[in-house]
Amino acid sequence: MTNADSMPAIPTTDAVRPVALTGDRATGPLHLGHYAGSLRTRVALQDTHRQYLLIADMQALTDTMHDPAKVGRMADEIVLDYLAVGIDPDRTTICLQSALPALAELTMLYLNLVSVARLERNPTVKEEIGLRGFGRAVPAGFLCYPVSQAADITAFRATAVPVGSDQLPMIEQTNEIVRSLNRLCGTAVLPEARAVLSGAARLPGIDGTGKMSKSRGNAIALSASPDAISQAVRAMFTDPAHIRAEDPGRVDGNVVFSYLDAFDPDADLVADLKDRYRRGGLGDSTVKRRLDEVLQEALRPIRERRKALAADPAIPAGVLARGTQDARQVTGAVARDVRRALGLRLT
Amino acid sequence: MTNADSMPAIPTTDAVRPVALTGDRATGPLHLGHYAGSLRTRVALQDTHRQYLLIADMQALTDTMHDPAKVGRMADEIVLDYLAVGIDPDRTTICLQSALPALAELTMLYLNLVSVARLERNPTVKEEIGLRGFGRAVPAGFLCYPVSQAADITAFRATAVPVGSDQLPMIEQTNEIVRSLNRLCGTAVLPEARAVLSGAARLPGIDGTGKMSKSRGNAIALSASPDAISQAVRAMFTDPAHIRAEDPGRVDGNVVFSYLDAFDPDADLVADLKDRYRRGGLGDSTVKRRLDEVLQEALRPIRERRKALAADPAIPAGVLARGTQDARQVTGAVARDVRRALGLRLT
Repeated sequence: MTNADSMPAIPTTDAVRPVALTGDRATGPLHLGHYAGSLRTRVALQDTHRQYLLIADMQALTDTMHDPAKVGRMADEIVLDYLAVGIDPDRTTICLQSALPALAELTMLYLNLVSVARLERNPTVKEEIGLRGFGRAVPAGFLCYPVSQAADITAFRATAVPVGSDQLPMIEQTNEIVRSLNRLCGTAVLPEARAVLSGAARLPGIDGTGKMSKSRGNAIALSASPDAISQAVRAMFTDPAHIRAEDPGRVDGNVVFSYLDAFDPDADLVADLKDRYRRGGLGDSTVKRRLDEVLQEALRPIRERRKALAADPAIPAGVLARGTQDARQVTGAVARDVRRALGLRLT
Repeated sequence: MTNADSMPAIPTTDAVRPVALTGDRATGPLHLGHYAGSLRTRVALQDTHRQYLLIADMQALTDTMHDPAKVGRMADEIVLDYLAVGIDPDRTTICLQSALPALAELTMLYLNLVSVARLERNPTVKEEIGLRGFGRAVPAGFLCYPVSQAADITAFRATAVPVGSDQLPMIEQTNEIVRSLNRLCGTAVLPEARAVLSGAARLPGIDGTGKMSKSRGNAIALSASPDAISQAVRAMFTDPAHIRAEDPGRVDGNVVFSYLDAFDPDADLVADLKDRYRRGGLGDSTVKRRLDEVLQEALRPIRERRKALAADPAIPAGVLARGTQDARQVTGAVARDVRRALGLRLT
């Protein structure tokens, strides 16, 4: 019996899976901080969620409008990073933000549901405005980017959003917009989203001054060469008071141990190293040697896969074109649903 | 000789005509104020320009988000108003803002070229925020609407924008954005726009308190019935000090004379009425009787054409669908040109 019409309809796995959305600003290649905090989670989510990854070139422009060509070049680099860490384009849709007009359309609608004062109160945006030294010259696009994120999330009807804890205000802003919109439409046209917090602590930059970020020059790229990795480990911040190997040393705030916690598969060994370091008698060079081994081991397969994929530019280009095409359908339909629910004239 | 290939290429008239763009917020049916200040100009522009009229439902939402269904219903009403006053859909493209995603895309890009402080300095927006009593609760979409207007204008590569003098800051904001963008792209990807000021003075509302506006309840709709016109003329503000017909009266600030100036085809008669009114001996009822005749005469053909067109809802729907389809091509191509010129990744 081969007539599909006579078979009972069975929902596809996709239909019942929750939708997950994340992405990355297209301002630089991805690094170990992305890997520890988010990429590993996303690889796992492929088994349980209908996942979309957004290459956020429009959001990148909110603070990089002075160099749009850099943003343009980064798109394929990030696709390569995704594929290299194990994102499977048959199970995850990788798409380009600027090629999804529905995201801009929804942003424009949502901007009417949020006051300027509310945007100015957003703690993440406030901090980032300070960090970037924008002052009064903050671009309107930057102030509004939480609204654009709400559009990204809702355009896919995503309910699961893997984020760091510093991004929780963004989910809150998204859900405020969703509730306002649903109230206005008199129907639950969009679902609220939920943050999926990774268990991992945020990976510090190699200089120990804060989070890892390419623009601060304290990052290790996923594509880093063996030499670059070793060099970064040698330069890594430890305990400045730990001068001689025999002195007791601090483990908290010691970047080398943060990285061992994040990447060393042998937790017992790391616990032992910590004990010895605290008591005294263990030199920085020994723990750094261990970390170098661990990172070389972790990054080698990623770098090699990435290199193989990069050899054929049609690979990332094809993945991005296919994913963006799919995402255009999904997000276009949602934007249309929203316009219809609001009672706008459709053509 | 009928082989077109052997004929010299002659540019079509459209190709050499400058592009004109205007439109109307879809918050209410059009009224005499629109007619005097703008619609008559647009009818004339059809002979000299490649003209687009935008039904600005997205912009309407920047201050009418509480009632989106009203905005939705207004689209076809405005199409009927356009057709009734003599806009010819074969010579003017009538299109719906919310159905042109390129406008939202360009807005999102341009928001990165304008600071929040710059938007807050816009004199027109400042005044309108005050008028609407938004205070601190001003929606982000409202603050940003000059950027959205810049997107509207540039998405059609419009160089001629018929506006009232109060809208000049909008053209200035548009051209600032155009210059920033062209500088960033290193090429003149977009042209600057020029305001086309109508010679007509702005038509006051019938109560003489300011401009005619449906929300202030001082408007005469283009579709007003004969009775509604007469009632509005009777209620019209004149000179409150002009009690008896024999008293001298003021013509300046006298709404009845403003309307006669705008609509009476017999300028000599109006000049004579003004003289007699100033000297004393001419009652309000006499000038109002003349204005009633003039307005009845001006609006009757508009109302009748409108009624005939409204009898078949497929007429405005078809005009809007066809125009929006055309505009989607034009604006989509411009948004793509801008993304390409910026060096963004295209898919």
